Amino acid sequence: MSGRITIALDAMGGDNAPRSVLRGATIAKRRHPDLEFLIFGDEEKLAPMMKRLIRLRRSSTIIHAPGVVSADEKAATALRSGRNSSMRKAIDAVRDGEAAGVVSAGNTGALMAMAKVVLKTVPGIDRPAMASFFPTLRGETAMLDLGANIECSADNLVQFATMGETFARTVLGSLRPTVGLLNVGSEEVKGHEELREAHAILKESGLAYSGFVEGDDIAAGTVDVVVADGFTGNVALKSAEGTAKLVNEFVRRTFKSSLLAAVGYLFARRALIKLRARVDPRRYNGATFLGLNGIVVKCHGGSDALGFATGVGVARDMIRNGFIEKMVREFHALPAGEEGERPRPAQGPAIGLSAQPVSPS
Amino acid sequence: MSGRITIALDAMGGDNAPRSVLRGATIAKRRHPDLEFLIFGDEEKLAPMMKRLIRLRRSSTIIHAPGVVSADEKAATALRSGRNSSMRKAIDAVRDGEAAGVVSAGNTGALMAMAKVVLKTVPGIDRPAMASFFPTLRGETAMLDLGANIECSADNLVQFATMGETFARTVLGSLRPTVGLLNVGSEEVKGHEELREAHAILKESGLAYSGFVEGDDIAAGTVDVVVADGFTGNVALKSAEGTAKLVNEFVRRTFKSSLLAAVGYLFARRALIKLRARVDPRRYNGATFLGLNGIVVKCHGGSDALGFATGVGVARDMIRNGFIEKMVREFHALPAGEEGERPRPAQGPAIGLSAQPVSPS
Repeated sequence: MSGRITIALDAMGGDNAPRSVLRGATIAKRRHPDLEFLIFGDEEKLAPMMKRLIRLRRSSTIIHAPGVVSADEKAATALRSGRNSSMRKAIDAVRDGEAAGVVSAGNTGALMAMAKVVLKTVPGIDRPAMASFFPTLRGETAMLDLGANIECSADNLVQFATMGETFARTVLGSLRPTVGLLNVGSEEVKGHEELREAHAILKESGLAYSGFVEGDDIAAGTVDVVVADGFTGNVALKSAEGTAKLVNEFVRRTFKSSLLAAVGYLFARRALIKLRARVDPRRYNGATFLGLNGIVVKCHGGSDALGFATGVGVARDMIRNGFIEKMVREFHALPAGEEGERPRPAQGPAIGLSAQPVSPS
Repeated sequence: MSGRITIALDAMGGDNAPRSVLRGATIAKRRHPDLEFLIFGDEEKLAPMMKRLIRLRRSSTIIHAPGVVSADEKAATALRSGRNSSMRKAIDAVRDGEAAGVVSAGNTGALMAMAKVVLKTVPGIDRPAMASFFPTLRGETAMLDLGANIECSADNLVQFATMGETFARTVLGSLRPTVGLLNVGSEEVKGHEELREAHAILKESGLAYSGFVEGDDIAAGTVDVVVADGFTGNVALKSAEGTAKLVNEFVRRTFKSSLLAAVGYLFARRALIKLRARVDPRRYNGATFLGLNGIVVKCHGGSDALGFATGVGVARDMIRNGFIEKMVREFHALPAGEEGERPRPAQGPAIGLSAQPVSPS
């Protein structure tokens, strides 16, 4: 559990880059002294900023990358012409073993496309998925796919379930996370055909599979891992985010609605600030691409330094707890995924055994 | 705009029936003195309860229906063997012109199946959809389909858009409601094929179509009507409900977390109670089946009297404002929906003209 962890940073991605990236890395370094960084970006812009960040400078190497992938660039364009971009070079560093993971707040589609091409998926996984975790009534729940795969087969969903289960063990520390498939009812006859097929496979798998769950089970924390196709997962995530914003705004207006309420706010202020910190979206900022031969964390485009630091923290935890090794082991136990053969999640004991953290390479 | 409105009530549907139904009807009658009721259910159970509800008794007729559709009954079973049920007889009363609409808190699937068979869809509409409205940052937004149709074609979505637009004009009073299609991004290339096809049709329609919207646009109130297939709409609705519950619970815990916070609560209490009333799910209790030759409102199974009264109020508003007549007019202007021909929403002027409330029959 000792040793340094090197993470590649795309310094030019995101609305507030490169400032938020450098400051975020500084915060992450303070939280996790075992971190070192390869910082990819425009050297001329980065160097003057780094001058003031002495602590960061000591544990970082700046690597010049002249190109920037813009926020609205098509993934295909970025793939073709972005070979000199900070994003691409940061991913290349993971492929080349120079860094154990990469963090970017840049263009999501471009990041996913480049990561897929450069890092490739783990054997047994057809498509990577985007995962994140959220506060719930019972703690935290992981959800995937959040938007990488609009159409998903039953096999994709089963693979997501296994990846998500490993993610929950690695990042949330659940020993035997429960897994649910997002549907519109808990009866077996509900939902799309792929869902029913995935349900049948998962019931026979060694996972702690809880069956179908519904939209309100996400925030209730009914299961540790919620699995959905990328379309459904994205809609659920954004509906939840929108509602949280709405209720927060209603509460804010309530405290401004009368003098008494304003006085009440003064008394409850400290507790309310704690609450805000607890549900601060910046605490849940890292969406992770699962299923690749390397850790890839995507921060919100609008991330500030704190948000970016959270993303770096997620990458660091996944590396420290051996996420990739665990996942490879899960999928290694499966049939090789030949034509017509269906990869199945590993049976019980294999999952139980791999619950111990694995030392990073 | 005068005259009595008769609504058929399924007195035996819902967890708290028949008490909540009778009490709910009493509240609705107080709010809307123009209401009269046909109350379907077990006469022996209803009669003693009605004794104490003098006001309701004067404006109601009890009609004996010996059967009850249970909460877990399959829709097909209810259709076959539920001809003497309170639910079925209440729907029959709408078909026979004895009531202008029906309200039930019973089994959703059975209600939809029976209503479809008995009332039939309006010419030009292939499938009915479930709609409701929700509080947003800008007022209220209607959303459909909330779960009646798991798989939807582009034509279904276009019909939902037109139905939803009429619903928003009728119930929310928007003069020219804006309509959005729920997707995972606003770019034209995003989402399932049916969505992109519906998008292309809606752009050419006379509706105030705003294009694709995302999950967080629902609570933001970006558009007046959010259109989705029943699977996506259901997941979005329930994710939002779950999140609202979560944030409310966090706020509740916050005020209990310290003495100062508890004191703060005392000061802000009145304002917070107002807030609770504002987002009270019982205010948003009526899901309406749109597209049928008759008004059908489904209340939550767990509705109490207030919740049921809200459902009755929605039915009453739709009848009073001539929802069915408006909808028939919208779809009348369209090609008859012959084989291979695609029904399209009416062009601009027709929609503008029908914005005036129409007298109920």
